[in-house]
Amino acid sequence: MAEFIEITDGAPIGQRGPAEHERRAQILKAADEHFRHYGYSKTSVAALGRAIGVSAAYIYRFFDSKQAIGEAVVAQVLSEMDAGLHEIAVGPELATARLRRLLLTMMQCSCDRFLKDQKVHEIVVVAMENNWCATVDHQHAVENAIRRVIIDGRESGEFERKSPLDEICSAIVAASLCFSHPKLLESESNEELERRLTIVTSLVLRSLAP
Amino acid sequence: MAEFIEITDGAPIGQRGPAEHERRAQILKAADEHFRHYGYSKTSVAALGRAIGVSAAYIYRFFDSKQAIGEAVVAQVLSEMDAGLHEIAVGPELATARLRRLLLTMMQCSCDRFLKDQKVHEIVVVAMENNWCATVDHQHAVENAIRRVIIDGRESGEFERKSPLDEICSAIVAASLCFSHPKLLESESNEELERRLTIVTSLVLRSLAP
Repeated sequence: MAEFIEITDGAPIGQRGPAEHERRAQILKAADEHFRHYGYSKTSVAALGRAIGVSAAYIYRFFDSKQAIGEAVVAQVLSEMDAGLHEIAVGPELATARLRRLLLTMMQCSCDRFLKDQKVHEIVVVAMENNWCATVDHQHAVENAIRRVIIDGRESGEFERKSPLDEICSAIVAASLCFSHPKLLESESNEELERRLTIVTSLVLRSLAP
Repeated sequence: MAEFIEITDGAPIGQRGPAEHERRAQILKAADEHFRHYGYSKTSVAALGRAIGVSAAYIYRFFDSKQAIGEAVVAQVLSEMDAGLHEIAVGPELATARLRRLLLTMMQCSCDRFLKDQKVHEIVVVAMENNWCATVDHQHAVENAIRRVIIDGRESGEFERKSPLDEICSAIVAASLCFSHPKLLESESNEELERRLTIVTSLVLRSLAP
């Protein structure tokens, strides 16, 4: 009984069955490869089954739809990005320097992910347009990293303390979309994205001046 | 000789022949209707000719390609928007109020144009991705409207005067993309766009504080 609870508790919504970690990892690895190679929309659950020598029905023991598999893959991609942002947010530098690095990293991660790997780009755009959990979690992770730095900067006296904290964090995320939103990256040059990063970072820092 | 110079001088690049204004207007009207109804990519120059009872060859006396017709249509759409922004920029209100209205109008025009009229949206996205003259002119018009207001706000003491004027104007345009870029409007709700407008406007005004 204890084992049963341990295994099923905390399983993400839409993902079924016992936590047979190796099999699940094998499915996600095949899905990641297929989505990168053929794209999300052109990959079927049956094809994933063939790739690892099991039936589609077997895969449905772990994930109740192709979308659930897609969500898990996107969650993996985004959580790597989030871990990097968190590390910067809790680092030893001045808040101003950390905020600069956060914004720079948001741009770099987006470019690395979405420009070099068009097929990953496709699945993340599908995820964003449909508000998949993973992208909502990612938004929270980005806002949390920024919030941490703003709070530290207020304590150290680097930033003003009058404006509502939540609003400030959301506004910085929104203003940063011009150099980090996957849909805008498709058609902008690296030079243009770097130009936007530079001037929007300065604008944000001026808005935080005490 | 004087007449020849008068007619050809100042003709936009890619648009040929004498300025037979009525015929040109007739072609643009047909093009505007076709682009709205069928989309830019599915409209041929031959179809435009059929619509107004002339040959494709006749249309090529006025425009040297379908793109030249598309550019003229996009220029018309965007120049209406630009005229509205200019009117606000030179208005009698305080610079702070004018800046608020400029940003609001940028969002509203984008929503009106691009959400209600998906086919116009298509041609403007084509134009932006290919850096057609009309979209570059539009960028300048938007920046000029903002510049005018910033200069007035510096003179009246509403805004700080230390930061480089060009950088400030470009940064405001970049930060505003999150609520006005056609590619982002496709997938965002009106509520989300209004939320971004509100918080980014406040961020911009804080950054301008003296």
